[in-house]
Amino acid sequence: AVVEEEGVDDVGFTVAKSIYMVSDGTGWTVEHLVSAALGQFDYCFVDRGCPVNTHLFSGIDDAEKLLAIIKQAVKEGAMLVYTLADPSMAASAKQACNLWGVPSTDVLSPITEDIASHLGVSPSGLPRGASGRNVPLSDEYFHRIEAVEFTIKQDDGASPQNLANADIVLTGVSRTGKTPLSIYLAQKGYKVANVPIVMGIDMPRTLFEVNPEKVFGLTINPAVLQNIREARARTLGLISAERGNYSDMDHVREELEFAARLFAENPVWPVIDVTGKAIEETAAIVLRLYHDRKHKCTMPTISKRY
Amino acid sequence: AVVEEEGVDDVGFTVAKSIYMVSDGTGWTVEHLVSAALGQFDYCFVDRGCPVNTHLFSGIDDAEKLLAIIKQAVKEGAMLVYTLADPSMAASAKQACNLWGVPSTDVLSPITEDIASHLGVSPSGLPRGASGRNVPLSDEYFHRIEAVEFTIKQDDGASPQNLANADIVLTGVSRTGKTPLSIYLAQKGYKVANVPIVMGIDMPRTLFEVNPEKVFGLTINPAVLQNIREARARTLGLISAERGNYSDMDHVREELEFAARLFAENPVWPVIDVTGKAIEETAAIVLRLYHDRKHKCTMPTISKRY
Ligand SMILES: Nc1ncnc2c1ncn2[C@@H]1O[C@H](COP(=O)(O)O)[C@@H](O)[C@H]1O
Ligand SMILES: Nc1ncnc2c1ncn2[C@@H]1O[C@H](COP(=O)(O)O)[C@@H](O)[C@H]1O
Ligand SMILES: [Mg+2]
Ligand SMILES: [Mg+2]
Repeated sequence: AVVEEEGVDDVGFTVAKSIYMVSDGTGWTVEHLVSAALGQFDYCFVDRGCPVNTHLFSGIDDAEKLLAIIKQAVKEGAMLVYTLADPSMAASAKQACNLWGVPSTDVLSPITEDIASHLGVSPSGLPRGASGRNVPLSDEYFHRIEAVEFTIKQDDGASPQNLANADIVLTGVSRTGKTPLSIYLAQKGYKVANVPIVMGIDMPRTLFEVNPEKVFGLTINPAVLQNIREARARTLGLISAERGNYSDMDHVREELEFAARLFAENPVWPVIDVTGKAIEETAAIVLRLYHDRKHKCTMPTISKRY
Repeated sequence: AVVEEEGVDDVGFTVAKSIYMVSDGTGWTVEHLVSAALGQFDYCFVDRGCPVNTHLFSGIDDAEKLLAIIKQAVKEGAMLVYTLADPSMAASAKQACNLWGVPSTDVLSPITEDIASHLGVSPSGLPRGASGRNVPLSDEYFHRIEAVEFTIKQDDGASPQNLANADIVLTGVSRTGKTPLSIYLAQKGYKVANVPIVMGIDMPRTLFEVNPEKVFGLTINPAVLQNIREARARTLGLISAERGNYSDMDHVREELEFAARLFAENPVWPVIDVTGKAIEETAAIVLRLYHDRKHKCTMPTISKRY
C-alpha cells in the first residue's frame, strides 16, 4: 500500500496533482486552454517537481453527473476547470465547489459575458448539441472537410497536375514536417499540397508554374534533421543497409544545401525554419504570411466573419 | 459613401462588431475559446441580427505591436481578447484598454493563476517560443505525427492488412465522415484506419479479425446523407449519368440498411449516428467510448500526464 504524506509518496516522489476538466460539449476547448496554461509550468514538469494529471469529462449535461465528478474531485484533491453553457449548470458547479472546497475556474462565462455586452445581445445559454438548438452544419464546415480530403490526396507530391488547385503549396526535404503541417492547415480550411525535395530527383514542372506567392519552403537545422531521420529509420525498423544515406550527416547537409539553392532560385517563396517548432507554430507563421500577402494590409491578421 | 448611424448602415443592415484576438504565441487557443463562446450567439448570426468579425493577431511579443493593435481597436470600436504569458505584457494590455475604453478580456491569466495556486508553484511568465525557453519537442509530439502519417496511409480502406496496427477502426458508408474523423483523431495521437462499406463489395477479412472493441460503426439519417451526396456529386462536377445511383434515395436507404445488418452481426461495435454532428462532436463520442472500454472505470474520462 502506498502511504501518502504531505504530497510525497513512499518512494519520495512528488504525488501528481489532478486537474479535472468538464464540459457539456466535446471538452476540446477546455482541454486546449488548460494545455496552453500548463505550458507556463513545463519547467517543473521536466524535473518532475510538479507532475500533473488532467482528466477530461465531456458531455456533462446534467447536474447529477456534474456533482458526481465534483465529489470525485474532493476525494482526489483535484481542481475543476469547466465550460458549461447553461448558466444554472455553471452556477451549480461554482456553488458545489465552494461548498466542498474544490478550487474551480469557469473559463466560458467570463468571455461569454464580455462578448454579450460588446454585442448588446444575450447568450443563448444552450450547450452545443442541445435539443433546442438545431443549427445546420455550415458551408464553411463542408469546405473544411473538402480541404482535408484534397490535402490527403496531394500528400507527398501526389498528383502534381493539381498544384494549381491548392491554396498553399509546401516544399522541403523529407522530415521537415510537410505532411502533418499540411493536415493541420487543411483542418483550418486550406487546400494544401506538399512537394518533397529529394536530391537528384527533378521537381514537378507545375511547381514553377503556380503562383509563387502560395509556395512555402521549409528548412531545418542539419543536426536536428539527422536526429529526426535516425529516429524515423528506427521506427520504420530499417536496418542500416536499408537506410542508405537517408540519415547520413553528409547527405543530410547536402540535401539541405540542394533545397537552399532551389529556394534561392525562387526568391518569392518564403523560407521557414522549422527547427524546434511545433506544427501549430509553423502553421501560424505560414498563415500569417499567407494572409498578409493576400490582403496586403499593414497589420497582419487572420479575419473571419460570423 | 456608407453612412453609419447607430450601428446601422445605409441599407439598413446592422454593422458587424469586431473582436480582436491577440496572442504572443500562435493564437490558436484564443481563437478556439472565442469561437466556442460565439456559439452562444449563433442564433442571432443566422438572422444577421448581430454579425461579428474576428481578427486574429498572433506572435505579438512586444509592447509596441500590442499598443498599435489596441489603437486600431479603438478606431474600429473592437473588443480585445488576449493570451499574453508575460505578466507585464498582460498588464500593458489591460491598462491601455482601460485608458482608451476598449472592452477587454484576459483569458490566460485567470486560469494560469488558479493552476499556480493549485500546484503551489509560479508560472514561468515566458511565452511559447520565447528565447529563454528551450523545451525539446516531446515523444508525445512525434507520436502524434506518426499517428497522422499512419492514418493518411490507411485512408479509405487502403492496406487492410494493417488494421491490426490501428488503435481505432472506423467503418461506414460513403459520406459518413470517416476521413475527416480519422484525421481529427489522428491529430490527437490515435492511429486510425477507416474501411468503407459499399453495397455489393466484400469487407476486408481483417476487419473481423481485429479486436472488435476498437471498431466503430458510423450511421446517418438517409435523407441527410442523400443531401450530402448530392452536394458532393455537384462539387466533383459529376453529371447525372456518372453519379449512377450514388445519391439516389432508394440506393442510399438500401446501402444504410446493408450497413445496419453488418453492424447487427457485430454487436460489440458501437454504432454512432453522425447526423447533424460536427466532426469534433463525433470524435468526442468515439474517444469517450474508447477510453471507457480501455479503462473500464466508472467515470468516463480521458486522462493525460504532464
Ligand atoms: N456551436 C456552439 N453552440 C453553442 N455552444 C457551443 C458551441 N460550440 C461550443 N459551445 C459551448 O462552448 C463550450 C466548449 O465547447 P466544447 O469545446 O465542445 O467543450 C461548451 O460549453 C459548449 O456547450
Ligand atoms: N508550451 C508552452 N509554453 C509556454 N507558454 C505556452 C505554451 N503553449 C502556449 N503557451 C502560451 O499560451 C498562450 C496561448 O498559446 P497559443 O495557442 O500559441 O496562442 C500564449 O500566451 C502562449 O505563450
Ligand atoms: Mg510527408
Ligand atoms: Mg473517405
